[in-house]
Amino acid sequence: MKIGFIGLGIMGRRMAAHLLTAGHEVSVPDRPSLTSEQRTSFKVLPDATAVARETEIVILMLPDTPDVEQVLFGANGVADGLREGQLVIDMSSISPTETRKFAETINQKGCDYLDAPVSGGEVGAKQASLTIMVGGPTAAFERALPLFQAMGKNITLIGETNGAGQTCKVANQIVVGLTIEAVAEALVFASKAGADPAKVRQALMGGLATSRILELHGDRMIQRTFDPGFRIKLHQKDLNLALQSARELGVALPNTASVQQLFSACVANGHGNLDHSGLVTALEAMASHQVDQAP
Amino acid sequence: MKIGFIGLGIMGRRMAAHLLTAGHEVSVPDRPSLTSEQRTSFKVLPDATAVARETEIVILMLPDTPDVEQVLFGANGVADGLREGQLVIDMSSISPTETRKFAETINQKGCDYLDAPVSGGEVGAKQASLTIMVGGPTAAFERALPLFQAMGKNITLIGETNGAGQTCKVANQIVVGLTIEAVAEALVFASKAGADPAKVRQALMGGLATSRILELHGDRMIQRTFDPGFRIKLHQKDLNLALQSARELGVALPNTASVQQLFSACVANGHGNLDHSGLVTALEAMASHQVDQAP
Repeated sequence: MKIGFIGLGIMGRRMAAHLLTAGHEVSVPDRPSLTSEQRTSFKVLPDATAVARETEIVILMLPDTPDVEQVLFGANGVADGLREGQLVIDMSSISPTETRKFAETINQKGCDYLDAPVSGGEVGAKQASLTIMVGGPTAAFERALPLFQAMGKNITLIGETNGAGQTCKVANQIVVGLTIEAVAEALVFASKAGADPAKVRQALMGGLATSRILELHGDRMIQRTFDPGFRIKLHQKDLNLALQSARELGVALPNTASVQQLFSACVANGHGNLDHSGLVTALEAMASHQVDQAP
Repeated sequence: MKIGFIGLGIMGRRMAAHLLTAGHEVSVPDRPSLTSEQRTSFKVLPDATAVARETEIVILMLPDTPDVEQVLFGANGVADGLREGQLVIDMSSISPTETRKFAETINQKGCDYLDAPVSGGEVGAKQASLTIMVGGPTAAFERALPLFQAMGKNITLIGETNGAGQTCKVANQIVVGLTIEAVAEALVFASKAGADPAKVRQALMGGLATSRILELHGDRMIQRTFDPGFRIKLHQKDLNLALQSARELGVALPNTASVQQLFSACVANGHGNLDHSGLVTALEAMASHQVDQAP
């Protein structure tokens, strides 16, 4: 199939490579940053309009809401090259409410739109084991499914309304951020009370407190290994998105607000590029020692 | 072995029964609430002093810190009956700092003290699969280990200082409470944004957001099955304990404080006897519909 792929960042370059492996012709817009290997593997076209014009399905994997808006509707953007019957898939993690507006404008051109953000990070992108959360019409989902299956494993159509995928991704980032904070409060408390946080983590692993976060991020907090992983400043962005959407929807998210503030404190202290498990440093700054030290 | 067991509540009656099954002679203080079956199975003695006098190891399984203080040091209490070389094991979930004081007083009588709170609930107590978190001297831990093994599975000596077991239990209740709240915020947000919370939970189960809480309590929030389980008012008590200890230790626990307030809101609304997954109702009261309804 002829696929356009826009956004060859850390995630996107891995995902696009899987589409090549699956036998698709993948077109990308020209950029100075393209490697010579990428210039050989991909079909390089002058801009996003040309990519849309020469492909059936256009996939976006971009950093934030304004980037998606620019690539879709800006000068030399995707929208200018679309024909009726094409499909646009945005796999970026962006605003659910803006997504709905983008989809409407694309639909007016007779094209389908899917929002299909992912989780699983660089490792998931590399191993083609991403979780993919999709919003949009069932027919469009089925059309895209072989592509999703080339890039991910746990693929769910959350709802037929555009934005449902982005909503699910926001929910994911809420749970992940708040669970990291929960583990951090528990380990700082235990450590400050004189208990060995490694033994506490071990004892908690058997029971109701068990989570992937306690296992992975709890260990990082104890070992003091804060190499990303997923950077604090990106998670801060995601929780800003959650709070902005929540405000629009009229729903209170007290602990999302609190964790967003703690991430802000980390950024203020120069820790924005640490892994999000580094959130524990903000709580430690409210106590008097680290979780790996005796009290 | 001759064991004293004080506190035949929902948990204690199951735990004491496992000690009988393991072949121990189990003495209990007389109470009007003892069933005729219990009067046959256990050796009934007039009071806690008599129980301490006629046994080697005395186990306590009581609701709260003042109950333990009363049974240990009140009139006709355990302390009055202790001889040098005996062991007192408190399996209740109580204050880590008060625990240290109780242990010191017991130690002055030439007796060892272990704090050994449990998690796993009534099911864990019934199936002898409790998680047991222990603080106290290694020798005392080894002496008690066969008894712990009759009642639980994941048994950890957290530290040789008394209170370490209680500290670990508090850490457990922090993680469990805050993870429930995280899942509740995510599902309320998703539902309010128009997504199906059941599909969101399913999509999140594969990835980094996975936890025992998302699996069990997330499902209860969606199914609206709030039969305990573990009651909100008990979890509220545990987080009060966490905040009180944190204050004494000089450590800030912002989200523990927030969740404790949400549990208080539930109690104020007459929901104190719901399962702790019912915390979601406090967040729903800050939005305009339940997680199982379309927006």
